[in-house]
Amino acid sequence: MMMKIMTFLTDFGTKNAYVAQMKAIALSLSHARLIDITHEVTPYNIREGAFLLQTAAPRFPVGTVHIAVVDPGVGTSRKGIVITTNRQVLVGPDNGLLLPAARALGSFTVYEITNPKYMISPISSTFHARDIFTPIAAHIVEGVSFEDVGPQIDDFVDLDFVHAICNDKGIVGTVLYIDSFGNIITNITESQIHRLKHGSMVTVFIGSKKHNIPFAKSYEFVKPQKPLVTIGSSRLVELSMNRGNAAQQLKVKPGYTVHLQLD
Amino acid sequence: MMMKIMTFLTDFGTKNAYVAQMKAIALSLSHARLIDITHEVTPYNIREGAFLLQTAAPRFPVGTVHIAVVDPGVGTSRKGIVITTNRQVLVGPDNGLLLPAARALGSFTVYEITNPKYMISPISSTFHARDIFTPIAAHIVEGVSFEDVGPQIDDFVDLDFVHAICNDKGIVGTVLYIDSFGNIITNITESQIHRLKHGSMVTVFIGSKKHNIPFAKSYEFVKPQKPLVTIGSSRLVELSMNRGNAAQQLKVKPGYTVHLQLD
Amino acid sequence: MMMKIMTFLTDFGTKNAYVAQMKAIALSLSHARLIDITHEVTPYNIREGAFLLQTAAPRFPVGTVHIAVVDPGVGTSRKGIVITTNRQVLVGPDNGLLLPAARALGSFTVYEITNPKYMISPISSTFHARDIFTPIAAHIVEGVSFEDVGPQIDDFVDLDFVHAICNDKGIVGTVLYIDSFGNIITNITESQIHRLKHGSMVTVFIGSKKHNIPFAKSYEFVKPQKPLVTIGSSRLVELSMNRGNAAQQLKVKPGYTVHLQLD
Repeated sequence: MMMKIMTFLTDFGTKNAYVAQMKAIALSLSHARLIDITHEVTPYNIREGAFLLQTAAPRFPVGTVHIAVVDPGVGTSRKGIVITTNRQVLVGPDNGLLLPAARALGSFTVYEITNPKYMISPISSTFHARDIFTPIAAHIVEGVSFEDVGPQIDDFVDLDFVHAICNDKGIVGTVLYIDSFGNIITNITESQIHRLKHGSMVTVFIGSKKHNIPFAKSYEFVKPQKPLVTIGSSRLVELSMNRGNAAQQLKVKPGYTVHLQLD
Repeated sequence: MMMKIMTFLTDFGTKNAYVAQMKAIALSLSHARLIDITHEVTPYNIREGAFLLQTAAPRFPVGTVHIAVVDPGVGTSRKGIVITTNRQVLVGPDNGLLLPAARALGSFTVYEITNPKYMISPISSTFHARDIFTPIAAHIVEGVSFEDVGPQIDDFVDLDFVHAICNDKGIVGTVLYIDSFGNIITNITESQIHRLKHGSMVTVFIGSKKHNIPFAKSYEFVKPQKPLVTIGSSRLVELSMNRGNAAQQLKVKPGYTVHLQLD
Repeated sequence: MMMKIMTFLTDFGTKNAYVAQMKAIALSLSHARLIDITHEVTPYNIREGAFLLQTAAPRFPVGTVHIAVVDPGVGTSRKGIVITTNRQVLVGPDNGLLLPAARALGSFTVYEITNPKYMISPISSTFHARDIFTPIAAHIVEGVSFEDVGPQIDDFVDLDFVHAICNDKGIVGTVLYIDSFGNIITNITESQIHRLKHGSMVTVFIGSKKHNIPFAKSYEFVKPQKPLVTIGSSRLVELSMNRGNAAQQLKVKPGYTVHLQLD
C-alpha cells in the first residue's frame, strides 16, 4: 500500500501558528503523513521558494502531494492551481512558484482550483494556504479526482531559471541560492564544467572581484577558511569555503552574476 | 477510528534538544501523532504563547491533546493543570497560558495534576514539560481518565485578552502580536469595523503617530511597500504592508495601543 | 509491535531543503516515524552536536535509529559508521559526533559503512547525509543486519567531554553548551555539588570575573534578572538568570572555564 504524504513549503516562518493551522486542517481531512520542506523562504521571494521546491520535490515518493505557498498576491484575482505529473502533485498559487518543480518532475498538467466544495468556509482573504490549498491537497491525497477540483488551464504563470551560458571566455551564470552554510549555489551545471579536474584552478569573477579558486571534490580538500569551487548536492556548481561562510566572505547575494574561466 | 494527536507549543526554541526530549517521552508512551505548533514563543512571554495557542488549537480535530509550556515558574509551587473541553484537552502550567485557548474551545473544566503515577522520575525542577506535562498528556491521549490525574479545581490562574472598545471617536484596541511578515495583529475584531468598505481610508493612531491607511481586502490591493488595514486570518484587524514589514516600518511592538477612526 | 523511529540531528539549518531531502529518502525506504532532534547545531561544531545527541538519544524508545550529521569532512576519506548499542542505533560520520551518545547508551559496537548496496547513487561528495547515512539508517530500521553494512572496526574517532575536577578550592569545570534561554550548562555534575543546600551562596569564577550566586531549586526562587546556580534537566550544574539570559549578561561562551567555591 502506498504511503500518503503531504509536504509543506512556505515563507510563513515557524514562530507564528500559521503552519500549525494548515496541519490542523490536513489532519482533519486526511491520514497523510505531514512533512515540512521549509517555512523559511525569504518572505515574498517566489524564485527562492521555487528553487527549494524544485530541489526537494523529486526526491519524494510517488504520490506525494506538495503544498507550496509563497503568495504575495493572496486574496487578489490570482488563481490557485493544482499541477499533476506522472509521479506527484503540486498545489499552490498561480505565480510561478510550482513550475520549476513541475518541470523537474516530467510532463505535467495544470488545473485551476474553482470548486468551492473542498475549501474551508469562510475563506480568509489573507490565508488561502489554510482555507484552500491545504484542504484541496488533503482531498487529493485521499482520492478526489483532479477534474473535480476545476478546469484544466494552459495560461498559468510560468517561471524558469535562466541557464548558464558557455562561450569562448568561459561560463557565465547566476547565483540561485545561498544556503545556511554560506555555500553559493549557481545555475552552472556539473556537465558545463565536466572537463575540469579536481585540483585545477578556476578564475572566478563575482561581485566585481576576481578570485583564483581551486576546483575540489569536497570542502576539506582546501584549508580551513579557504574557498573552493565544487559540485553541490543538486549537481550545480557551488562556491564554498571550508568551515567558513563563502557568501559572507565574498559578499555575494542571490541574483549576482558569476563568470568562471576554466584555465 | 479517531486519530490520536498531541501538539507542542513552547518557548524552548529549536536549537536545543529540549523538544526532542519531550517527543521521546511521548513516543515511549503513546502512538499519537506529534505536531509542533511553535517553539519560538518569545522566552517567558505567557501572553504571546496564549495568543498563539488560542489561534491554533480550535483548528485541530476533536480529541487532540495540546501540551503548551511557557513556564517561568517551573519548579516552584505553581500548579500543573489539565483543561478539558468538549472537543480537546490542554496540558501545561497554571499561569494563564492555556486559558484563552480553553475559552475559545467552549466550556471547560480544570484539573490539577497531582498523581505522581504518570510522571517521569526523577522529576527535574527545571523541565516539567518533559517529566510531567508530556507523560500526562500521553497517558490522557491513550485513555487515562481526567479524574485520575488529580482533583478538579476552580482557583486556576486566568488570563484574558482585553477587548477593543468602540466609542464616538472610533475604536481603541491593543496590538496582540507581530507575525514574521511584520503584520501587526490587533484585538479589534472584524465585526467592530463591519461598516467599513474596502477602499475607504482609516485614520490610524499608533505609537504617537497618525497615519491615513486604506482598508483593503488583501495585501496586493495597495502598492508594494504601502500600508493597509485588513482582516487577518483570525478575523482580527491587522496593519500590514504589501511585500513589506509593517511593524518595522511603523516601529510598533506588542502591547501598543492602536486607535482607528473610520471616517 | 515496536514502533519504528528515525531521528535527525544536523547543522544544516531549516531554511534549506537539505533535511527535507533526507526525509524524502527515509520515506521512500521505510515506514519509520521521523523525529527532528535539531538542525541548528552551530555549523561544523562537532562537540556541540555530540552534546545535544548525548542529551536526547537516551530518552528515545528502544530500537530508535538516530542519524546525526555534523560533517565538515564529508567527501574526504573520513569513514561513515553505524554504532549499535543494546537499545538504539546511531548512524553518521566517523568524527566523534556519535561517541558521547553511544557511551551514554551503554556498551557499543562500531561498524564501518562500506556496502554500496544501501547507498543512493550517484553519491554526492558533499551530501552523504542524504546519499549514505539516511538510506543506511532506513534499511537498518527495516531490518538489514549490521554485518551487512560493513566490517566491525575499533579505530573509530573518539570524543569525550572532560570531567569537572573537585579539589580543596572547589570544583573546576567547563561550559558545555548555552541554550536558547541563555542557560550556561557546565560539565559539573549534580553529585559533585551534592553537599550544597538550596539557598546557600556559591562563589563562581567565570570569564575572569567573580560572582556570588545563590544555589536554587529553580529559576523563580531568585528575583527577575538575578542569577542562580541550579541543577539542569540533564543533571548538570547550570548558571541561569530568572527571566533573563545568563550567558549574555555574564558574557560567557562554550569552552569557558568555570570554578565554583561552595562555601
